[in-house]
Amino acid sequence: MPDRAFQDYYPDHLAWCYGCGRLNEHGYQIKTYWDGDETVTLFRPQPHHIAIPGYVYGGLLASLIDCHGTGTAAAAAYRAEGREMDTEPALRFLTASLRVDYLKPTPLGILLTLRGRILEVKGRKVTVGIKLFASAGASAEPLTANTPVTYASDGACVQGEVIAVQVPDRYVLGLL
Amino acid sequence: MPDRAFQDYYPDHLAWCYGCGRLNEHGYQIKTYWDGDETVTLFRPQPHHIAIPGYVYGGLLASLIDCHGTGTAAAAAYRAEGREMDTEPALRFLTASLRVDYLKPTPLGILLTLRGRILEVKGRKVTVGIKLFASAGASAEPLTANTPVTYASDGACVQGEVIAVQVPDRYVLGLL
Repeated sequence: MPDRAFQDYYPDHLAWCYGCGRLNEHGYQIKTYWDGDETVTLFRPQPHHIAIPGYVYGGLLASLIDCHGTGTAAAAAYRAEGREMDTEPALRFLTASLRVDYLKPTPLGILLTLRGRILEVKGRKVTVGIKLFASAGASAEPLTANTPVTYASDGACVQGEVIAVQVPDRYVLGLL
Repeated sequence: MPDRAFQDYYPDHLAWCYGCGRLNEHGYQIKTYWDGDETVTLFRPQPHHIAIPGYVYGGLLASLIDCHGTGTAAAAAYRAEGREMDTEPALRFLTASLRVDYLKPTPLGILLTLRGRILEVKGRKVTVGIKLFASAGASAEPLTANTPVTYASDGACVQGEVIAVQVPDRYVLGLL
């Protein structure tokens, strides 16, 4: 994987999101990367992120799908324009609609892998399909950009769809 | 509103949810009550719960809708059986499917009101429709069971639907 995640390219004033903003010290700070035509995020929930003991809280899983979706949407929009993510103008997306299906309980204590696929890029709107896996054989090492992606053999725990829309230019330009 | 919220009736071993478990000291500990045939939750996000500066994080809003939905589902199931929530056996629900539509940005610093309506009770499955309002005129007083519910005049910021399923008896009985 490359050294910089999608979220590392967000403009500073749009990098405060609780789910994916690198400047939000209280947040999840997820990091998403290309893997061919798919996108990948790895995340390890904290012990208190539970629904019932032993299983991950569905609201956190929805949050991960949400921000994996907006990150993927941004990357897809740059790719559709044939641009690198370090070029101007910056593209940043927010979620218009989120759908999450909990297929089976997601066990706690295991590195989670989200994989996204771009379903549609249409104007300022991008639709992303996402699956979340609990990777039982995943490394316990700290996550870095070079952490190898592991694949679950037992199927997705959660699947979701994010319809993301590009943030209006006045926000990207900092005219809040 | 009554003194005890739906979540106050959850069995201890099923009261650890990050969104609604009264025993999870790190979590949101939402409290939901009947208001006629609708259900109500009030919640005040923290300053770091942002998507972009000034607006509430969508993942938090999805989490609130999720747990408001499961709480409402439990209350609806008791009501469908003609039982009070302090009677046995305990009924507890988890989310099978979550849909969230972000209609407009939800401003930070304002008390949020979620209102739920039961769309269907079918066997062990309950479907709940939910709207989330930013109540600009809401009291800044600490929330208690007796905090008056305020109504937004400007329409919902978010709407969602939760399909909740009853937790299998072995979990309710504590045989984890």
